[in-house]
Amino acid sequence: MSGKKIPRSADNDYTREAAAERRRFVEEFTGASLEHTGQYSFDPGILPGNIENFTGVVQMPVGFAGPLLVNGEHAQGDFYVPMATTEGTLVASYSRGMSITRAAGGITTTVVDDAMQRSPVFIFANARDARDFGTWVADNLEGIRAAAQTTTRSGRLRNIEQYHASRMLYLRFNYTTGDAAGQNMAGKATYAACQWILQNYTGNLVRYLLSGNIDTDKKHSQMNTLHSRGKRVIAEVTLPRALVEERLRATPEQMFAARQTSQLGGLMAGAVHNGVHPANGIAAVFIATGQDEANVAESHASLNYVEVTPDGDYYYSVTLPSLIVATYGGGTGLATQKECLQALGCYGDGKARKLAEIIAATVLCGEISLGAAVVSEEWVSSHDRLGRNRP
Amino acid sequence: MSGKKIPRSADNDYTREAAAERRRFVEEFTGASLEHTGQYSFDPGILPGNIENFTGVVQMPVGFAGPLLVNGEHAQGDFYVPMATTEGTLVASYSRGMSITRAAGGITTTVVDDAMQRSPVFIFANARDARDFGTWVADNLEGIRAAAQTTTRSGRLRNIEQYHASRMLYLRFNYTTGDAAGQNMAGKATYAACQWILQNYTGNLVRYLLSGNIDTDKKHSQMNTLHSRGKRVIAEVTLPRALVEERLRATPEQMFAARQTSQLGGLMAGAVHNGVHPANGIAAVFIATGQDEANVAESHASLNYVEVTPDGDYYYSVTLPSLIVATYGGGTGLATQKECLQALGCYGDGKARKLAEIIAATVLCGEISLGAAVVSEEWVSSHDRLGRNRP
Amino acid sequence: MSGKKIPRSADNDYTREAAAERRRFVEEFTGASLEHTGQYSFDPGILPGNIENFTGVVQMPVGFAGPLLVNGEHAQGDFYVPMATTEGTLVASYSRGMSITRAAGGITTTVVDDAMQRSPVFIFANARDARDFGTWVADNLEGIRAAAQTTTRSGRLRNIEQYHASRMLYLRFNYTTGDAAGQNMAGKATYAACQWILQNYTGNLVRYLLSGNIDTDKKHSQMNTLHSRGKRVIAEVTLPRALVEERLRATPEQMFAARQTSQLGGLMAGAVHNGVHPANGIAAVFIATGQDEANVAESHASLNYVEVTPDGDYYYSVTLPSLIVATYGGGTGLATQKECLQALGCYGDGKARKLAEIIAATVLCGEISLGAAVVSEEWVSSHDRLGRNRP
Amino acid sequence: MSGKKIPRSADNDYTREAAAERRRFVEEFTGASLEHTGQYSFDPGILPGNIENFTGVVQMPVGFAGPLLVNGEHAQGDFYVPMATTEGTLVASYSRGMSITRAAGGITTTVVDDAMQRSPVFIFANARDARDFGTWVADNLEGIRAAAQTTTRSGRLRNIEQYHASRMLYLRFNYTTGDAAGQNMAGKATYAACQWILQNYTGNLVRYLLSGNIDTDKKHSQMNTLHSRGKRVIAEVTLPRALVEERLRATPEQMFAARQTSQLGGLMAGAVHNGVHPANGIAAVFIATGQDEANVAESHASLNYVEVTPDGDYYYSVTLPSLIVATYGGGTGLATQKECLQALGCYGDGKARKLAEIIAATVLCGEISLGAAVVSEEWVSSHDRLGRNRP
Repeated sequence: MSGKKIPRSADNDYTREAAAERRRFVEEFTGASLEHTGQYSFDPGILPGNIENFTGVVQMPVGFAGPLLVNGEHAQGDFYVPMATTEGTLVASYSRGMSITRAAGGITTTVVDDAMQRSPVFIFANARDARDFGTWVADNLEGIRAAAQTTTRSGRLRNIEQYHASRMLYLRFNYTTGDAAGQNMAGKATYAACQWILQNYTGNLVRYLLSGNIDTDKKHSQMNTLHSRGKRVIAEVTLPRALVEERLRATPEQMFAARQTSQLGGLMAGAVHNGVHPANGIAAVFIATGQDEANVAESHASLNYVEVTPDGDYYYSVTLPSLIVATYGGGTGLATQKECLQALGCYGDGKARKLAEIIAATVLCGEISLGAAVVSEEWVSSHDRLGRNRP
Repeated sequence: MSGKKIPRSADNDYTREAAAERRRFVEEFTGASLEHTGQYSFDPGILPGNIENFTGVVQMPVGFAGPLLVNGEHAQGDFYVPMATTEGTLVASYSRGMSITRAAGGITTTVVDDAMQRSPVFIFANARDARDFGTWVADNLEGIRAAAQTTTRSGRLRNIEQYHASRMLYLRFNYTTGDAAGQNMAGKATYAACQWILQNYTGNLVRYLLSGNIDTDKKHSQMNTLHSRGKRVIAEVTLPRALVEERLRATPEQMFAARQTSQLGGLMAGAVHNGVHPANGIAAVFIATGQDEANVAESHASLNYVEVTPDGDYYYSVTLPSLIVATYGGGTGLATQKECLQALGCYGDGKARKLAEIIAATVLCGEISLGAAVVSEEWVSSHDRLGRNRP
Repeated sequence: MSGKKIPRSADNDYTREAAAERRRFVEEFTGASLEHTGQYSFDPGILPGNIENFTGVVQMPVGFAGPLLVNGEHAQGDFYVPMATTEGTLVASYSRGMSITRAAGGITTTVVDDAMQRSPVFIFANARDARDFGTWVADNLEGIRAAAQTTTRSGRLRNIEQYHASRMLYLRFNYTTGDAAGQNMAGKATYAACQWILQNYTGNLVRYLLSGNIDTDKKHSQMNTLHSRGKRVIAEVTLPRALVEERLRATPEQMFAARQTSQLGGLMAGAVHNGVHPANGIAAVFIATGQDEANVAESHASLNYVEVTPDGDYYYSVTLPSLIVATYGGGTGLATQKECLQALGCYGDGKARKLAEIIAATVLCGEISLGAAVVSEEWVSSHDRLGRNRP
Repeated sequence: MSGKKIPRSADNDYTREAAAERRRFVEEFTGASLEHTGQYSFDPGILPGNIENFTGVVQMPVGFAGPLLVNGEHAQGDFYVPMATTEGTLVASYSRGMSITRAAGGITTTVVDDAMQRSPVFIFANARDARDFGTWVADNLEGIRAAAQTTTRSGRLRNIEQYHASRMLYLRFNYTTGDAAGQNMAGKATYAACQWILQNYTGNLVRYLLSGNIDTDKKHSQMNTLHSRGKRVIAEVTLPRALVEERLRATPEQMFAARQTSQLGGLMAGAVHNGVHPANGIAAVFIATGQDEANVAESHASLNYVEVTPDGDYYYSVTLPSLIVATYGGGTGLATQKECLQALGCYGDGKARKLAEIIAATVLCGEISLGAAVVSEEWVSSHDRLGRNRP
């Protein structure tokens, strides 16, 4: 039996029967049962475009954390945030952060950038030909834009960045993508744009690839931290000193000092960002709401910035430079994922920035909560504690 | 109603009733239905330690890709790999890679390192005190190890690395963790070790934190690429030239040239690794098999190395420096996740390296498949094509 | 005597007498002789603006390497390149590279970008105020530019990039700077621009710093690799196969294979660029020609890209993304430095790009030469050598 | 004349006559005068091993900064530090920092690590062979060490680190090197060690290269920040509040706040370290004291850590992870360079750590001084200034 292909049905591949046949195949091959994997409540007919070889489902537990109070421009008021995870204490820890930020008056969120990229590369006989091409691209932006936008109703080509190396010119096309994550849209539009370029550019050109990798799809990169991919969202809160001391059992100064030490460690270790654990919250909400789970790699960076204010309060901000989220397309329309989005009031048109704000606020709660937990494990010499040796 | 806490049941929190009550609460608050979210086939009594505020499940579709032929030391033979995803073409693309690597005789996999870390930091009045402490730690490794290992049956403290900065000494404890991912085990053992240190160290010490962040938990870091976190696994295959040309519609030279261009792009963009999209395969298998999904951030790096051999074949290898996987503990025991692990023959004791090998082989298939897809989108000038202008 | 200040003369500080007095002071304090340090051939009256506490000179040996054949847009023909160094084999190694590239017809050089930066940061009460300010800056570019350009005749404010993090907006002012390196010019112009901003911006603003560090002055950064600082220069050559084999005692395939292995090592180690040793050539020419020697830190990166062509030749290119050079101002007018610049035909107005091209070509020669040296140390198993085991 | 080689004298190449002949050659070719370049006070007979094609010297002005008060383990007391530079204000700025740290009681310096590296790479048919070899290397350390140490009297092979990627094993040999920088010594010793390995290893091995680039020679890397290259030196000072306010015209809180903002900017920009401008001081002292000037690239990183103490004072530390210095060998014996070393009491045996401490202390002074200058340019809204809006 070994080596046989997973069964595919010619014309009714996305049916309960086809899935059952595949489960039998896998069960027979492996001796394992897929009983629970075969339990799902939706019609597989909704799945084309989301998966191939559909065989069943993973049932990942969802806990709701909240209420999360967001003072955003798109998200306003209390939210209960669905988090899909198998890691104990995660929901509890985020909930603790939500409780304290709510007590502080809620979290202010701001989307400061929003674009999706595709980055083709053009290869020339030498660097000068590449430079000439760069000039031509800048001069022909309107033609390129028109070609790109023939492929999409919601997407707009905002601008094209140019990066030179050797005899190559790497272009980074930036699109606004409405409420889709937009990778596919950006890919199609850029393909059309490149076809237009190939037809219209009369200079020397040797080769071209639709992806030159500077969009760094599915990878963290400094490019994305600098220039954003998806939404760039900032969440801020100022926690009154009394609240910190009472609820986090730490002083703002202790929290701050622990961050300084962590930050130096991260810098030395070559950590790609100075956040605590944004990946936890992002992964949990991404899975619950039908986001592309692999984008955790791209979206897990956070630029954290904290201060003890002159009044002794604790200002905490997270900047998520590359948060890739969608409220339609991809997995957002699947049965449970759609419900989770709806529970946030974030399903469908005009909701992507709202979702981005909620996720950024959620991340901030997790940073505060775990940051406090680290401090609570702190040991301080009695001399230091009593003698004001150091903060 | 706003601001109310999610309901918790005093002594039967992990029951269908408690979950239903929470769904009603969320539905009432949000107006959304959680009908599908409430459909799950297992007893919530298995969930303590995996989630809080359990409310229901996300049903994420699973497709099996395969057969994947692995010539590992722990994984041997054909496997059908469960991939949980909502991204279309993912399962199909990995399947294509599995098919071609199988035709090439399968993938060789090798685990070259295996450890989990916790990294406390000790803070002193000055750098010399920190240096003195470092000497003491090296001299007292046995005592520290004994203390650490009182807390665990399966874990062993392998060694302690030391990193100096300012008046701090950051320690990186490396543990072998059996078949658990081991973060919790490493945390507990290191806590015990640090307690022993605090009791026995008579030198000057100002403060100590259980985490100094050089374990870079939930974050990609160069530290982990250099020194591994979890398993360091290498997967290799040599694809015969004819196979590449027939099945991938490209020559090895084209594949190679596209990688060179991509690699330069990634270097310029500050991409943290030179792989194509390992995050896709890793995330999909992680979710299907109950791994910590946030670890995609830590585990998504791959050092890819390829060659066109003198015989014109295509050698392709991936090195995953920080693959964090478990075959017990965490989410591995949940209903569907356990089934997916069992379908790989990877549930329970003694299976973690087998799972690591399967995932590395899976990643390799995806790298080859998407690498070929990029080339198939390539445009080459007729002059270049005919005139052998450049490879 | 300990603790005394270095003597300063009230109104004739830059004289031979003042320098001699300082030498006596140092000699007396330390017991060391500064006999040679006191030997210099120029009038110290030229030094104001270059150094304080002038005491004497370091006599650093200069060797000329060449002829270097450059087919640039600004540098054309043969050059003898002055290299100041104390490291044996450096001049010889670069000379070897110059000889082989000359035999190949010379090096093509191309300047693709040219700007100097200053990066102030504006700090607000929250991220939204920062975003509002960003909009205002974009809308008021002409006013800002006019204010900046009041301070300089040669400099032009090309554009302002914006980077958001937390409640800060970091601006990156890009100037064309004629033939000066331009840091001082950029600083003065940006100061004037910021004064104009402070006078004209009526929105909320809390604080402002003239440097927010994203110009990463005196530090390597990914920002500069992406966006250039100083000149972005590319040097290219195709070495005929026979020439490589005869003169470098290696095949292009061997050279290429060694680079692949090195490149993977560098990626794993977190090396900031994939060049071999551009710092050597850059430092030596910088010192000889009166450049700011500390800029070696900023300018030492190179994006190397090589190919074995279909004809079996060896294409080698270096891209220096951040080469900071001047042909007037700074140390360029000092006695020996000016002579070295003149020996390159690079002193004064209109020569900065010519110098950049010569340095990039020089770097390329060093990369080829050392790359070949690494291969010549290679050991290959007889099996591999004879049996075509691998390239 | 174009294309002629620089003249070489058969057996008296390092003479005034040979240098003069070269100057005539260059002058004739270029039309430039090398009058000043021909003025030097030493016998060129000392130059073999330092330069080829000796033609003359660059006279780089030297200013002494100080007194610098160092409370080191190797450097103790006041020093006047020779700085070779052509950048105005550099010596003055470092002097200002020296003055204030002296008023604070001086700078404590600590060397915490000290080693030089060479990193060969061994290439195998597959990853398992590479792993087997790694085991063998660990088991045969004594034999390898003995072979390495046959080549050197002062060097000792401390340990060998192993890094796996693909079918390669990269080794990082760490040597103590006495008072030489040690790159050549490490190279020779590692070559001998590798010869021993080739003779004694009976397993499969395909190829080997003496450099696999993870020593990242002449390049900044995270490897070196983590594991040091050359000396790892820490310099610390606590500046009393009154002193900061009086002498730097800023409060510790202002200094600290500016650093926080800068640090976030640097992180966002991908700056490789969080220091201010260590390259300036390092380059100036390196050139004055005959260090390898290209090592500024490797040595320019600093991990800065600052605090406002509970008493309101300002603690400032720099950690230079990769400071490569020598007090014999290389350029240290040249006429002026030797004098400058002697003026520091740092020429010859047993002085390398002393020099490292002095340089680290010097860097710290520059960080403080420029940090204060940045703050003095700060603009603060009157509301913020008066109303305690934010620190």
